[in-house]
Amino acid sequence: MKQYLESNKQRFLDELFDLLRIPSVSADSAFKNDVRRAAEFLRDKLTAAGLDKAALHETAGHPVVYAEKMVDPAKPTVLIYGHYDVQPADPYELWHTPPFEPTIRNERIYARGACDDKGQVYMHVKAVEAMLATDGLPCNVKVMIEGEEEVGSDHLGEFVAANREMLKADVILISDTSIIANDVPSLEMGLRGLSYVEVEVTGANRDLHSGVYGGAVANPINVLCEMIASMKDADGHITIPGFYDNVLELSAEERAEMAKAPFDLDEYKRDLDIAEVAGEAGYTTNERTSIRPTLDVNGIWGGYIGEGAKTVLPSKAFAKISMRLVPNQTDAEITELFSNHFNAIAPPSVKVAVRPHHGGLPYVTPTDSIEFEAASLAMEESWGKKPIPTRGGGSIPIVALFERELGLKSILMGFGLDIDALHSPNESYGLFNFYKGIETIPLFFKHYAALKANQ
Amino acid sequence: MKQYLESNKQRFLDELFDLLRIPSVSADSAFKNDVRRAAEFLRDKLTAAGLDKAALHETAGHPVVYAEKMVDPAKPTVLIYGHYDVQPADPYELWHTPPFEPTIRNERIYARGACDDKGQVYMHVKAVEAMLATDGLPCNVKVMIEGEEEVGSDHLGEFVAANREMLKADVILISDTSIIANDVPSLEMGLRGLSYVEVEVTGANRDLHSGVYGGAVANPINVLCEMIASMKDADGHITIPGFYDNVLELSAEERAEMAKAPFDLDEYKRDLDIAEVAGEAGYTTNERTSIRPTLDVNGIWGGYIGEGAKTVLPSKAFAKISMRLVPNQTDAEITELFSNHFNAIAPPSVKVAVRPHHGGLPYVTPTDSIEFEAASLAMEESWGKKPIPTRGGGSIPIVALFERELGLKSILMGFGLDIDALHSPNESYGLFNFYKGIETIPLFFKHYAALKANQ
Repeated sequence: MKQYLESNKQRFLDELFDLLRIPSVSADSAFKNDVRRAAEFLRDKLTAAGLDKAALHETAGHPVVYAEKMVDPAKPTVLIYGHYDVQPADPYELWHTPPFEPTIRNERIYARGACDDKGQVYMHVKAVEAMLATDGLPCNVKVMIEGEEEVGSDHLGEFVAANREMLKADVILISDTSIIANDVPSLEMGLRGLSYVEVEVTGANRDLHSGVYGGAVANPINVLCEMIASMKDADGHITIPGFYDNVLELSAEERAEMAKAPFDLDEYKRDLDIAEVAGEAGYTTNERTSIRPTLDVNGIWGGYIGEGAKTVLPSKAFAKISMRLVPNQTDAEITELFSNHFNAIAPPSVKVAVRPHHGGLPYVTPTDSIEFEAASLAMEESWGKKPIPTRGGGSIPIVALFERELGLKSILMGFGLDIDALHSPNESYGLFNFYKGIETIPLFFKHYAALKANQ
Repeated sequence: MKQYLESNKQRFLDELFDLLRIPSVSADSAFKNDVRRAAEFLRDKLTAAGLDKAALHETAGHPVVYAEKMVDPAKPTVLIYGHYDVQPADPYELWHTPPFEPTIRNERIYARGACDDKGQVYMHVKAVEAMLATDGLPCNVKVMIEGEEEVGSDHLGEFVAANREMLKADVILISDTSIIANDVPSLEMGLRGLSYVEVEVTGANRDLHSGVYGGAVANPINVLCEMIASMKDADGHITIPGFYDNVLELSAEERAEMAKAPFDLDEYKRDLDIAEVAGEAGYTTNERTSIRPTLDVNGIWGGYIGEGAKTVLPSKAFAKISMRLVPNQTDAEITELFSNHFNAIAPPSVKVAVRPHHGGLPYVTPTDSIEFEAASLAMEESWGKKPIPTRGGGSIPIVALFERELGLKSILMGFGLDIDALHSPNESYGLFNFYKGIETIPLFFKHYAALKANQ
C-alpha cells in the first residue's frame, strides 16, 4: 500500500488539479454545465478506480454521483459521502491566482474547492483505488457524491429516500471538516446546524430623493440595520424569543474537557489581524464557535453602491442572514422563530418579507461507538498520536438527514485546517493533508472491519 | 412674447430631448465624454439664443458653461445658475423606458435629468432666447451652468473665486426646486445643507467561513448595522453628540405659518404606498423634510450579495450615509462630529474608516427682499395666484458659496413637482411645468427690473 501511494503521488495530484479546474459553482446557474462536468469527471474516475455501477443519478437539481464495490456480503459496508460542488469564487479580484487554475505555493494547493470538498472527496476516490489495487477492500464500499451541498442539498433528501436499498450501509464516512493542526490530529464529534434566510425591507414604492423625503419616510436600510442590531443584546445574546429554549447546555465537566484542546488566542487574533475577538458573553472562543448558536449577516445590500455619491432614499434593502444551530435546536423551529420575530419587530412604516434559503440540523456523534473508535484508531496509526475529539462550528445539514432516512451514524474524519480559507478568496489545501487523508482512509476501513468482526 | 413661445413650443421640446439623450452622469467616470458633450450642447444653444461669450471654462473636473448678454450697464444683472450633469440612472431595470431615451407619457417627459436639472435649466435658455427675440432683455443676463452639482460641485468654488469680476451680478436665479402642485405655486425660501460620507468597517483580514469562525469573530455587517442603529434613538433623534447644537429652532409662530401650506397626509402615504410616515418625534412631515436635519443611509453593501446562499463571515462592510442640515449647522462641523463619533463607537473588534464625499451649507432666502418679491410677483402673474413660501428639504450646496464669494442672494424659483422622481428611476417633468417656467422667467426679469428701478 505505502509503495502504491508513493509511486502514484504525482498522478493523484494531477487528477485533483483536473477536477479543480472545473468551476462547479452550484449557487450560480451560469455554471450549470460545469457542475455536471465535475460529476462526470468523478463518475469516470470511480470507474477507473475499479468501482461498479458508477453513474450520474438525476435529481431536480444537480446530479448525484454514485458507485459501489461489494466485495463480500458478510463484511460491513462503508458509505462515503462528499460533494463536488463549490462555493462561488467571488470576489475574484482578491485571489492571488485565479480560483479555477490550481497552483501550488508553499506546499499548498490554491483553488476554489481545493479543500471544500473536492480535495477531501478525491482522497476517498484515491484511497479506494489504492485498496483495490493492493490488499483489497476490508469492507464493502459505496460512494455518494452530491452537487448541491453548498446550496443546502435541496434534492439529496428525495434521492436518499428513493434509494434506501441502494444506500444500505453500516456507517457513513465524511471528510469535510478540519483537524486542529498538522501535528495535532482531531476528530469532530459534532456539527452545528444552520438556518439561512433572506430578508427584504420595503419602504416607499420607489427610490426617493433623500432631500425631498428624507426625515419623513422610513429608510429601509436604516430600518433593516435597526432590526438586525436589535436581534442581539449588549452581551451578544440573540434576542429572538425562544431562540435558546432547546439549546443543550454543556456541563462544567464537558466544558472543562473541551478547554483541554490546544488553542492560542494571540495566534488566532494575529492570524485574523483583529485586536479583539467578539461574541457571546460567558463563553470562550472555542465554545462560541462550536457549542453556541450564532446569528450572522452573510450579505447586505440596498440603495446606491456604485462610485461616488447618490442622495437616494431607497425603496428596498436586503440581507442574507444565517444562524448556526446547536443540539437540540432544529432549523425548522429556528427559521419559524426568526420569521415570526422579524415580522413582529418591523415598524409600521415598512413591509418586510422573509425567504428561507436552506437549513440543517445540528449533529453529535457518540464517541463511544465502534465507528468513532475506528476513526480514532486510524488517525492514531497514521499520526502516531491519538486525535482530540472536537465540536465543529460548520454545518453539514445532510448528516442529520442520513440518520433519519438511513438510520446511520456519520463519522466526520476531515483533514483540513482552519487556515484553508474555505468559502474565502485563496482557498487552499495542504499537500500534507491531501496525502495524509489518502493514507488514513484505508486504515479506517481496516480498523472498522476488525472492530465489527469482534463485536 | 406669448406668440413667440407658442410658435416655438415644439422646437423647445425637441431641443430639450436632444440634451436629455446625452448621458451626462458626473458621478461615473465612464460618462466623462458625455458630460462634456452636454456642456458643448448648451454652449451652442446659448450662442444660438443670442448670448455673447458662450464658452466652456475648464476646471479640474467637468467644465462650466458660461455666457452673458450685457444690454445696458445701468440695468441690474441676473446671474442664472443651473447644472447640466445628472444623477446615475441605475437601477436601469426599473425604468419603464430607457433613461436616456426621453419619452412623453401622460403629458410628462420621462428621462434622467428631465427635471433635475436639464429640463429646468433649459427653460432659462429658452426664456432668454424669447426675450432677446421679442421685447428685449429688461436686465443684463449671465448664465453659469456647471457639470458637477450631483457630485458636490467640487470645483465650482475655485471657478467662482477666480471669476468674481465676470460673475458680478445683482441676484442669482436658480430653478432646481419644486412647487407644491400645478395649481398651487410656491417659492422656496430655504434649503437644507448636506454632509455626505462613506464608511468602511473591517473585521478579520479576509472573508471567513461563518461556521468555523461565526460567533467568535466580529461580523463587520452586524457591527455596521449596530453602529448605524445606535445613531438614532427611539424618538428618531440623532445621537451624535453636539449634532443639534447649532440647529435653529423655529418659533411657534413660524411653525404655525408653515403649517398653512396645503398638505394631504393620506394622499402622501397613498402616493408612496406606505402605511405610516416615520421620523423625528414632535415634528410634522413637512417640518421633518425642511426645518429638521436627517441621517439617512443612501447605500449599504457587504458580504455575498449574489444569487443563492453563501455562508461567509465577510471581512468588510460599507455604507454611504448622508445628513441633511438646517440653519445654522455647517457641513464641516457635522462631518467632523460624525467622523469622531463613528470612530468613538466602533468596538475594539473592528477597524473603521470614514471618508467625506461632499457637503454643503443650509440656506435661507429673506422673503422681504426685492429679489424674493420679484419672483413672487412673476409667479403670481403667470398663475393668477400668490405663491406660498416654503422651506425645501433638498440641498444646493453652491447657494451658500455664492453668498460668501459673490455676496449675492439666490432666488430658488423652481417649477418641479414632488412626483418628478428626482434621483429615482422614471424621473419625469411635466410639459405644463416646462412651459410654465419658460413663461414665468421673463416675468421675473420684468418685475425685478421694475422693483430695482423704483428702489
